[in-house]
Amino acid sequence: MKFSPLFWPIQLKGSTIYILDETLLPQKVKYIKAKNYIEACSAIKEMKTRAVGQVILVFYTFLQALKQGKDLKKVAKAINGARPTLPFKVLTDMVLGWQQSGAPLEKCILGFLETLRTKRIKQAEDAAKLLKNNDIILTHCNVSGLMPLIAQFAAAQNKRISFFVTETRPYLQGARLTAWELKEAGLPVTLITDNMAAHVMAEGKISKVIVGADHLALNGDIANKIGTYQIALLAKYFKIPFYVLCPPPSKVKSGDDIKIEIRPEKELLEFQGKRLAPIGVKGYYPAFDITPNALITKHIYLEVR
Amino acid sequence: MKFSPLFWPIQLKGSTIYILDETLLPQKVKYIKAKNYIEACSAIKEMKTRAVGQVILVFYTFLQALKQGKDLKKVAKAINGARPTLPFKVLTDMVLGWQQSGAPLEKCILGFLETLRTKRIKQAEDAAKLLKNNDIILTHCNVSGLMPLIAQFAAAQNKRISFFVTETRPYLQGARLTAWELKEAGLPVTLITDNMAAHVMAEGKISKVIVGADHLALNGDIANKIGTYQIALLAKYFKIPFYVLCPPPSKVKSGDDIKIEIRPEKELLEFQGKRLAPIGVKGYYPAFDITPNALITKHIYLEVR
Repeated sequence: MKFSPLFWPIQLKGSTIYILDETLLPQKVKYIKAKNYIEACSAIKEMKTRAVGQVILVFYTFLQALKQGKDLKKVAKAINGARPTLPFKVLTDMVLGWQQSGAPLEKCILGFLETLRTKRIKQAEDAAKLLKNNDIILTHCNVSGLMPLIAQFAAAQNKRISFFVTETRPYLQGARLTAWELKEAGLPVTLITDNMAAHVMAEGKISKVIVGADHLALNGDIANKIGTYQIALLAKYFKIPFYVLCPPPSKVKSGDDIKIEIRPEKELLEFQGKRLAPIGVKGYYPAFDITPNALITKHIYLEVR
Repeated sequence: MKFSPLFWPIQLKGSTIYILDETLLPQKVKYIKAKNYIEACSAIKEMKTRAVGQVILVFYTFLQALKQGKDLKKVAKAINGARPTLPFKVLTDMVLGWQQSGAPLEKCILGFLETLRTKRIKQAEDAAKLLKNNDIILTHCNVSGLMPLIAQFAAAQNKRISFFVTETRPYLQGARLTAWELKEAGLPVTLITDNMAAHVMAEGKISKVIVGADHLALNGDIANKIGTYQIALLAKYFKIPFYVLCPPPSKVKSGDDIKIEIRPEKELLEFQGKRLAPIGVKGYYPAFDITPNALITKHIYLEVR
């Protein structure tokens, strides 16, 4: 099994955390250093890492803080405030709970991360079982190394899989990350813009949709990268199965209870420092949207507890 | 009435055609020169002008060729081959028909263009009648100066209108052209990425959709900029009226008979010379899609004949 660097994009060496800077991919594979929890939270806010990278980063940040003798409640508070849509509190409460119960904290955290790694591989294996030979998967944004794993598991079952990837504006995670890791794994991948989903579905080019999720509510609703919702609506219309690789559920009842993060308009109005629209035009950038449970053909769960 | 430069982006002075280079907007308002029909066809192929600009350019190209004593059948053939999805043949047949009938050609062409100008203004007036005070219009791509005109007609009827505009990847006509001309006209405009349409509709931010069309088939199907179809499907789902500012109908029966132009993948994989996805990733760029008549609440026709 060959892993994408995105599968485990964070490392802890000594008391320094190394974070794969996903904003520089695919041009540069560069790791930035976080020497304390303040720097780790900045990396989250600036979207240097995302998705599972953020989860791993949370746990390494606690390990680091433990080594540095920091107050873990302060660390938890800083992490919880870093980005609104993401259920960091579930993770930080878990760590604080271990601490309160007097459990060996370092062991608990390392054990959790090992389980996360194993169960994510299992999640890719579960997804591969849903596929048929010659399936063409449409995916959106990036699911941190799971797509190449899914294709490898499928290949082991003699099923050849190819991919269409939406570029995923404005951060282009589809173009920069997913297309990159699939291509690096030697898999056939075609990039489209976000506005082509219905057209390629109508042309019969897509047989399954698989996306990730940043937040899973108790009723099965998910929050994922902006654009997921409309792909789910279109998949329903074209009767294409829509699968979601989920994180563990949070404690919120439904998607209605998930607060959508609004990012700075500049991230949409400019591209690499170049203005796309003239000054005076407003931008609106909700970073996530909610896909209701009813549009999801099957959740592929990640059971870490 | 104040007109956007996009409303009439082509001029003929002497025997030189001046073409507003829409690829440079909004940073630069620059006109390029076409000294003959070969140069005019190149400008069409390279998408220096689009939509109604192409129609005006076709007629000025014939006027120019007439002055230069060129064979008009050759001119027609070159124009017809410039871009596949666009029904240039309807226009070139019209001119060749006038010539064959012995009509005064220059007068026919100038008369046609004057009618086009008048009827386009009428089309904006017709669209404005469909609107209510405080309507929020979602639009896609660019309809060559009609959106600011619609808002001006609405304002004259005491109806305040605001706009959401999709950026319209990969050429960003929404960000560069529509947002620009609306902002220049002093109208409230918010830019979103193409993947946010469903989300803003679900939030109740959109009350009407108005788009243009590059091609109208006899059964009411339209071809328009890629991405139009999925907005129409989403508008249907959210019960939002979907209006289309149409060109005159072509002679094809339905959308199935319209050939979709596939543009070079480079236009999607690169942005201003910078690679977005790594080498080895394929791109797929159908420039248009078909929106079936059944999804269109109302066609706003342009009657030039």
